[in-house]
Amino acid sequence: MDTHIPMRTEPEHDLRHHGDAEVRDDGSSLVDLAVNVRADTPPDWLREHIAGSLAALAAYPDGRDARAAVAARHGLPVERVLLTAGAAEAFVLLARALKVRRPLVVHPQFTEPEAALRDAGHTVDRVLLRAEDGFRLDPAAVPEDADLVVIGNPTNPTSVLHRADAITRLARPGRTLVVDEAFMDAVPGEREALAGRTDVPGLVVLRSLTKTWGLAGLRIGYVLAAPGTVAELERAQPLWPVSTPALAAAEACVAPRALAEAAHAAHRIAADRDRLVAGLRGFASAGLRVVEPAEGPFVLVRLPRAAAVRRRLRDLGYAVRRGDTFPGLDEEWLRLAARDRATTDGFLRALGQALTV
Amino acid sequence: MDTHIPMRTEPEHDLRHHGDAEVRDDGSSLVDLAVNVRADTPPDWLREHIAGSLAALAAYPDGRDARAAVAARHGLPVERVLLTAGAAEAFVLLARALKVRRPLVVHPQFTEPEAALRDAGHTVDRVLLRAEDGFRLDPAAVPEDADLVVIGNPTNPTSVLHRADAITRLARPGRTLVVDEAFMDAVPGEREALAGRTDVPGLVVLRSLTKTWGLAGLRIGYVLAAPGTVAELERAQPLWPVSTPALAAAEACVAPRALAEAAHAAHRIAADRDRLVAGLRGFASAGLRVVEPAEGPFVLVRLPRAAAVRRRLRDLGYAVRRGDTFPGLDEEWLRLAARDRATTDGFLRALGQALTV
Repeated sequence: MDTHIPMRTEPEHDLRHHGDAEVRDDGSSLVDLAVNVRADTPPDWLREHIAGSLAALAAYPDGRDARAAVAARHGLPVERVLLTAGAAEAFVLLARALKVRRPLVVHPQFTEPEAALRDAGHTVDRVLLRAEDGFRLDPAAVPEDADLVVIGNPTNPTSVLHRADAITRLARPGRTLVVDEAFMDAVPGEREALAGRTDVPGLVVLRSLTKTWGLAGLRIGYVLAAPGTVAELERAQPLWPVSTPALAAAEACVAPRALAEAAHAAHRIAADRDRLVAGLRGFASAGLRVVEPAEGPFVLVRLPRAAAVRRRLRDLGYAVRRGDTFPGLDEEWLRLAARDRATTDGFLRALGQALTV
Repeated sequence: MDTHIPMRTEPEHDLRHHGDAEVRDDGSSLVDLAVNVRADTPPDWLREHIAGSLAALAAYPDGRDARAAVAARHGLPVERVLLTAGAAEAFVLLARALKVRRPLVVHPQFTEPEAALRDAGHTVDRVLLRAEDGFRLDPAAVPEDADLVVIGNPTNPTSVLHRADAITRLARPGRTLVVDEAFMDAVPGEREALAGRTDVPGLVVLRSLTKTWGLAGLRIGYVLAAPGTVAELERAQPLWPVSTPALAAAEACVAPRALAEAAHAAHRIAADRDRLVAGLRGFASAGLRVVEPAEGPFVLVRLPRAAAVRRRLRDLGYAVRRGDTFPGLDEEWLRLAARDRATTDGFLRALGQALTV
């Protein structure tokens, strides 16, 4: 089967399976390489800033300052910014508020956009990028009549960073082009970012503050789009969609000090990931292959008997993310989060054991 | 015009006007009688509990414990409970997830349910309860074919507490009956509450933790409904709809200690409100009338030249809620929040001044 052909199918994958389930549904405490977020807590200065906002909880949230701060961070007017309760809310808004007839998701990819579209009653087409092509985007594979196209950059779970100009070639009059840049701030220099661009028709960029800042529990992200699209999405939001602590975090995370810290962290994360990749290459003789170049804060690998290896890793104390819930992948794939040197070294030793059983 | 007749009209009222705008859009610091929430910050023990949850922000929210705690508080199975990002999210879910043809809102009432229904593309019927009837519910005024009926109890802004049996008489096969009990925990003994009832077909009860606990900024509330309805609403929610700090707050606020504190507070609030009502009666000679009995944590009053009085009160340092954005009311109405004795006494003095100018 030519997997470039978009398919209208019922999902065979559990689109609502996420890495957090792999960590939490186990009484023991596993070292977490399954969830794609910063493993440690938010930095002290940020946690203190958020804690400071709790004194103002009696008032309804007022998102104006945070919205202005996000707009300024991307050099955009506030009319192009919508704050959301995490990227997950943005996917639901896109699925329910826009007039869409033929949505399409480029896979393998974070499954929530497709799940949100299906839950909203849409039939969702898929383009499946192929392992043999390094999961790289071929803009020609997207059919002309798709009026909503969703792609991640860098892509979860493949860790592929598509070129910005390959993505902008997907733009069309009458098409909404959604680029999920949830992990872009982990790419040094945010190379290939489209956030802040106003010259691409129909462009919608999603950003998360969850991953870099260890704020998954706070539910904060944002949408950058044309003012008309922002207004449409905003009308579908509940009143006061983002909590006061989340607004405080958003404002703090786009301030110059935080951006400098994030830029620095991106280089550290890239080094952590490269160390993981280098270690994984050592298992080539066991049939393990890494999708390269990996440019996100995680790595996708293919290996024989991956499910058994994953179970063995659990016994050894390590949680990794199964790949078979992602359309386009099967039970031979695992996703591994980049962690600090000691964690990675410990993991690589455990993997060596798991592969030799 | 018989205001009992449901009307299909475009809204003439600004349904998206809320009390928070009356406080915040002014540089000066006004004494706030405009917003219907606890005026002070959350209690120390609760703020500390929420602050403690910030250490777990790196993980995605896990709502299971909070959901179980809310279910236990109402003696219900967890399948009948849905946690939401405030009641505002619940209104959007009800408007968008349920198959509804002819929704109806009983007014005067919190405007967000109607705004959410309209934003979702519905034409919304209204039943307007009348001042001459004390804004009391006449179940016969609701047309048989309304398949979604929304009513507040106690009602914002009228402070009327409808009898539970009057509300349950609105239940019908094929009708969803939404009772917004956001202020019920301010009613001593939660008299007339329907939360926890499973014998009323189509019943959906909304609860907020915002008002009593000074948590408006945190976005937390919940829906109690039949398992099938809960499942339908849940499918329309984003992933991880409620933040970790909000979940921590929810769990804490339904614990026995908190319930005892809330029950105690309800009596204090009722005494505060009664003091306000007694003071307001003193202005009868100026044409001021109070809607009685007032059973919520706020009071609705009618008075000549209300708009001018409201402006004069602002000059004197007091913010009160205009009534004319509520369908069924006009510029002669104001809503006043019950506050502590010193605030109320100061307000009544200012009102005396404002009325004699």
